[in-house]
Amino acid sequence: MSAPGNTAADLAERLLAGDKRALARAISLVENDDPEGWALVREVYPHTGKAAIVGFTGPPGVGKSTLIGRLIDHVRGREREVAVLSIDPSSPFTQGALLGDRIRLTDHFLDPGVFIRSMASRGSLGGLSEATLQAVLLMDASGKDDVFLETVGVGQAEVDIIDHADTVVLVLMPGSGDSVQALKAGVMEIPDVIVVNKSDHPLTDTMVREIRGTLSLAPQEGWRVPIVKTEASRSEGIDELAEKIEEHRAFIEEQGTLAERRRRNLMNEVLALAAARLRRRLEAQVSEDESVQELLDEVVARRLDPASAAAKLLEREL
Amino acid sequence: MSAPGNTAADLAERLLAGDKRALARAISLVENDDPEGWALVREVYPHTGKAAIVGFTGPPGVGKSTLIGRLIDHVRGREREVAVLSIDPSSPFTQGALLGDRIRLTDHFLDPGVFIRSMASRGSLGGLSEATLQAVLLMDASGKDDVFLETVGVGQAEVDIIDHADTVVLVLMPGSGDSVQALKAGVMEIPDVIVVNKSDHPLTDTMVREIRGTLSLAPQEGWRVPIVKTEASRSEGIDELAEKIEEHRAFIEEQGTLAERRRRNLMNEVLALAAARLRRRLEAQVSEDESVQELLDEVVARRLDPASAAAKLLEREL
Repeated sequence: MSAPGNTAADLAERLLAGDKRALARAISLVENDDPEGWALVREVYPHTGKAAIVGFTGPPGVGKSTLIGRLIDHVRGREREVAVLSIDPSSPFTQGALLGDRIRLTDHFLDPGVFIRSMASRGSLGGLSEATLQAVLLMDASGKDDVFLETVGVGQAEVDIIDHADTVVLVLMPGSGDSVQALKAGVMEIPDVIVVNKSDHPLTDTMVREIRGTLSLAPQEGWRVPIVKTEASRSEGIDELAEKIEEHRAFIEEQGTLAERRRRNLMNEVLALAAARLRRRLEAQVSEDESVQELLDEVVARRLDPASAAAKLLEREL
Repeated sequence: MSAPGNTAADLAERLLAGDKRALARAISLVENDDPEGWALVREVYPHTGKAAIVGFTGPPGVGKSTLIGRLIDHVRGREREVAVLSIDPSSPFTQGALLGDRIRLTDHFLDPGVFIRSMASRGSLGGLSEATLQAVLLMDASGKDDVFLETVGVGQAEVDIIDHADTVVLVLMPGSGDSVQALKAGVMEIPDVIVVNKSDHPLTDTMVREIRGTLSLAPQEGWRVPIVKTEASRSEGIDELAEKIEEHRAFIEEQGTLAERRRRNLMNEVLALAAARLRRRLEAQVSEDESVQELLDEVVARRLDPASAAAKLLEREL
C-alpha cells in the first residue's frame, strides 16, 4: 500500500531532485533487499556516474571518521554536496563499538548538503558489497558531487567494497604495525593515497619512512602514491589530503584509467550479483527443500564429497 | 596420457596408503583445477574426517611459521603424522615475501611423517577457499593425524579459509595493535586460542591484559579462550600451546560442537562451491560470448543497471 506521493516513480523523482528523505528511504529499501529498491536503482541508474567516489579504509581506531568529518568541512566550503556511507563490520560481541565514530559526524546532520548513512555488515559477503554499490548509485543519482565510502579493516571483504571507489585512501596511524606489514607482504592492495593520521605522535616520521620504503618496492607506473600526514582532530593536513585526492582523480581521468576502472568494477559487480543471487536461492532451498537437506546429510556422512554435491545442486538449478 | 602406475585409481590407492609423492601430485591436480583432482577427492572422501585440523592466522611477521615448526617437533615427538598447508596471499609487488617463513620449515623436509605444502592465492575468493578444503581433505585421507592450516591476515577471506579448521589459533605479538583493535571492534572473529609470540618483548604482559580485557566483553559461553605466551624461536610455551589446542578439541568433541561446526562448514562449502562454479562459468562467457559483452556494455553506458544485468545473465543460464 503506497501512501499518496510515495509511489516508486514519485520516490525516484524526489530522489533525483536531491530530496534527502527520499534518498534515506531509497537506501533502506535497498538495504532490506526490497524489490522496490531494486526497481528504483534501475530507474535512476541512467543518472549515475557523475559523483567522485572516494573510499576510506584502514584499521579501527585510526580516526577515519574524524578525518572524513574534516573533509566534509572542506568540500562544503567549496559548495559541493557530499554523501557518506559507512560500512560497519558485523560485531559479534560489541555491537555498535564504532557508533562513537559515527557520532563525530553529527556536526553535519543539519546541513542539507550533507547526507550521512551507515550500513551494517550483512551475513553474506556478496550481499554487503552489492548493497553498498546500490546505495552509492542512489547517492550519486541524488546529485551528490562527492560520495565518501568508509570501511573498517583491510581484508578481502573491504577490498570488494572499496573497489566501488574511484580513489582509495588508506588511513593509518603510528602503531599500525600490522597494516604496514600487510602492505609490505603484499597482503593488502596498494591504495591511491596513504594518510598517517594522529601525526603528533613521535613515531610518525619513522612510520612515513617505513611506508615509503615499502612503496618503493612496488612497480611504479603512472601514479605515485602520496603519503599525507594529518592530525584530523586539529584539522591539520586536510587541505593537502583533499588536494591529493583531487590530483588522483584528475590523473585517472586524464589517463583514461577512471573509465577502465569503472568498467572492470561494474563487470565484477554484475558477476558477483549473479553468483550472490544464485547462492541466496540455494540457501533458501536448503531450509525449504528436503532433498537438498538430504544431499547435505550425505556430505556430512562423508558419502558424497562437497564438490559433487555442489555440482548436483547446480544441475538441479540449471 | 597416464604413465603406468599413475592412473586415478592407482593415485588414490597410493594416497590412502600415505605416499607423500602421491599426496603432492594430488594437491597439484586440485590446485590446477584439474578434473582428475576433483575425481580423486570424490574417491577418497569417505576416508576423511579423522584428522584434527588446526588453523593458524594472524598478521604477517608475528612468527607463525616458526611456531608451527615447533609444534611439528612436538607432535612428531608423540609419533603423530602431520601435514601443513600454508596459504600465501597474492602478492602484487613482493612475490614471495613470505618465502622466508616457509624456509624455516625446511628442517622437516626429510621427515617422512611431515608433509609441507603452500598454495598461492587464486584470483577468486571462492576459488582459494575451495582449493584449500580439497587439499585439506586429501591430507586427511592420506592418514595425517594433524593438519595445520596457515593463513596470513585477518580479513574475511582468511576467515573463510580458516573456517575449515576445527580449532582456530590467532597468533599476535606485542605491537599487533591493529589486530587487537579489530578484535575489540568485533571486526575479527573470536578465535579458540590466542598466542602472544615473541613474548620476551617488554610490552607482552600489557598486551595480554589488553586482550583479556577485550575477551571479557564477549559473551562467555562454554569454552574460555586461553591466551598463551610463546617465544617460538626458543621453543618456549610450545608445550602449553599444544595442550590448549588439545583441550579445545576435547571440549568440542565432548560438547558435540565439533560435529555441528563441521556440518555448518561443509554446508557453507557446498553453497560456496556452487556459487563459485556458476561465477566461473559466467566469467568464461564474458570473454567468449558476444551477447554477454553487449550486456556489460549496456551497464557501462548506464543504460542497464547491474542488478538487472545480473538477473538477465542468470535467466539465460537457468
